[in-house]
Amino acid sequence: MKKIPEDISSTIGDADCVVLATHVHPDGDAVGSLLGLAQILKDMNKKVFCYLEEPVPYLYRFLPGCEMVNTSIEELGVFVEENPNSIAISLDCGDRDRLGKHHHRLLEIEPFLVIDHHRSHKNFGSHRWIDSDRSSTGEMVYELAEHMRAVISYRSAYNLYVAISTDTGSFCYESTTSRTLRIAADLVDAGVSPDEVSGYIYNNYTLERIQLMEKVLSTLTLYEHDTLAVIRVSRQMFEESGALPEDVEGFIDFPRSINSVKVAVFIKESRKEVVSVSLRAKGEVDVAEIAKIFGGGGHRNAAGFRFNDKSASQVQQIVIDELKRVISRPPTL
Amino acid sequence: MKKIPEDISSTIGDADCVVLATHVHPDGDAVGSLLGLAQILKDMNKKVFCYLEEPVPYLYRFLPGCEMVNTSIEELGVFVEENPNSIAISLDCGDRDRLGKHHHRLLEIEPFLVIDHHRSHKNFGSHRWIDSDRSSTGEMVYELAEHMRAVISYRSAYNLYVAISTDTGSFCYESTTSRTLRIAADLVDAGVSPDEVSGYIYNNYTLERIQLMEKVLSTLTLYEHDTLAVIRVSRQMFEESGALPEDVEGFIDFPRSINSVKVAVFIKESRKEVVSVSLRAKGEVDVAEIAKIFGGGGHRNAAGFRFNDKSASQVQQIVIDELKRVISRPPTL
Repeated sequence: MKKIPEDISSTIGDADCVVLATHVHPDGDAVGSLLGLAQILKDMNKKVFCYLEEPVPYLYRFLPGCEMVNTSIEELGVFVEENPNSIAISLDCGDRDRLGKHHHRLLEIEPFLVIDHHRSHKNFGSHRWIDSDRSSTGEMVYELAEHMRAVISYRSAYNLYVAISTDTGSFCYESTTSRTLRIAADLVDAGVSPDEVSGYIYNNYTLERIQLMEKVLSTLTLYEHDTLAVIRVSRQMFEESGALPEDVEGFIDFPRSINSVKVAVFIKESRKEVVSVSLRAKGEVDVAEIAKIFGGGGHRNAAGFRFNDKSASQVQQIVIDELKRVISRPPTL
Repeated sequence: MKKIPEDISSTIGDADCVVLATHVHPDGDAVGSLLGLAQILKDMNKKVFCYLEEPVPYLYRFLPGCEMVNTSIEELGVFVEENPNSIAISLDCGDRDRLGKHHHRLLEIEPFLVIDHHRSHKNFGSHRWIDSDRSSTGEMVYELAEHMRAVISYRSAYNLYVAISTDTGSFCYESTTSRTLRIAADLVDAGVSPDEVSGYIYNNYTLERIQLMEKVLSTLTLYEHDTLAVIRVSRQMFEESGALPEDVEGFIDFPRSINSVKVAVFIKESRKEVVSVSLRAKGEVDVAEIAKIFGGGGHRNAAGFRFNDKSASQVQQIVIDELKRVISRPPTL
């Protein structure tokens, strides 16, 4: 694991006003590390502006400090104008484009710090701390706070715990280290209840999500002696069930949980003309390499990419052909 | 949390030969703490006899040291005869009867030590360490090993990690403390891979289970303004999917995970002429009380019962009528 670059901690320590941003379609680590760091900085008496292109997804509305998120790029402009010494920090974002359609406006802020743990991180910003050995950006924010000797209040701890818990699948994924577990222990000592947090994360779904789950499971198809599992969601399924795009979160764990499966694929008709693909592996196949072929990125066991000009069926065929090729290849050990 | 009674650690420390036992139908904590302590004692050059009434369940056959388990009460007799100074330790067992049909034979061994974390523990044995504030018996075995300054090898650590992880629902349940997480961190430092263990525990399902899951989800019905959710499994679904009765484990978590739901019901056509019912609640409704009406039992948030003379549809109607009555009743606070 990499040490915190001194310019990162000193720049943040010296700043009075900070703009925080994360990736579009934010997950638990994105929102949790954003709100966690925002609270830590506020507790250090800094002015904070939390920018997100769209409101916090309903799944994460239980996080303390959600109301800090501002989706107005105009108000961001006013904040930076009124506080010309503002610095910006991008959290959990592997690519400048994923900051959203106003990423150019955000990147005009200088210095622009980047804290991220994605293996496929594409460098941007003026100062960077990228560590793919970290379970989550939430874990990095905790290290930063400890390095700055900042107080971690209950509200900060709560957000960071959610960030770490969601990005490790509740301490199950490969990225979980003993350091991850010790940080989680510190956050519990700061008042977080693992039981309460887990209730919000894992027992807070809509009826529409369960109805969509049934439809998606009906698409399950296995290939290559059941080593490759594919599920799909169509726009029609969203319309029929009334579920939201974020309701598919976690669905890929179902095909992944089958004992014979080496790679699970989830093909999503998200917006008009866009088909996105998520890949999950169990260590044998490096899905980040496959995502790279299609212009995407991610980690060894979790990666993704998207197509703008193909139907879901076309995408399914292309992806399966590529995966069949990789899976049938003898391992190079 | 309670300190380890000095007589427990000194009796174990002084013993040369130890008989270990746990409860029938053992779960991950039972098997993991049994094999974990067995390995720790073997590494201290003690003779160990691991007794279980039936072979280790299929789900836990991946645990290192499974082959140590002996199901022969006759061989246990020979071991104790050859090693007359043997002591016995019961792990994770809340009641002497749950040691199995030969519990009298086991309890003839003196001293008989008991290590357990069940709240409903019914005292037995000559020396006891009962601590219901502990997440798992695996956690208590770790504390014992540390107290005795025993070496925790990779094999011991692996078993104790599985014990703790399974009994906390991967660090989600109320019993998870910061100490639990720090012990897990120590076990990771001893070489355990959370990813590998989780793979065995949570990604080891059959394709048939996922196919059955789709069928069961299609039966989801909501009542009483979506506060009451019911799912069903029929014998036909088992036949069509080829899934086994144990494959429905965890299915009730889907209706329970809906945010509006107060009580989730799972109606199972299990054997011929038998319909069993599982109930899960979230604290507001005491489902043990409802189970009692129908001759069943359980805890406040998890209970069950069965009917031998009714069809699944009849059972569904009876149970829903009763639950509607309870849910619509104003709370007595």
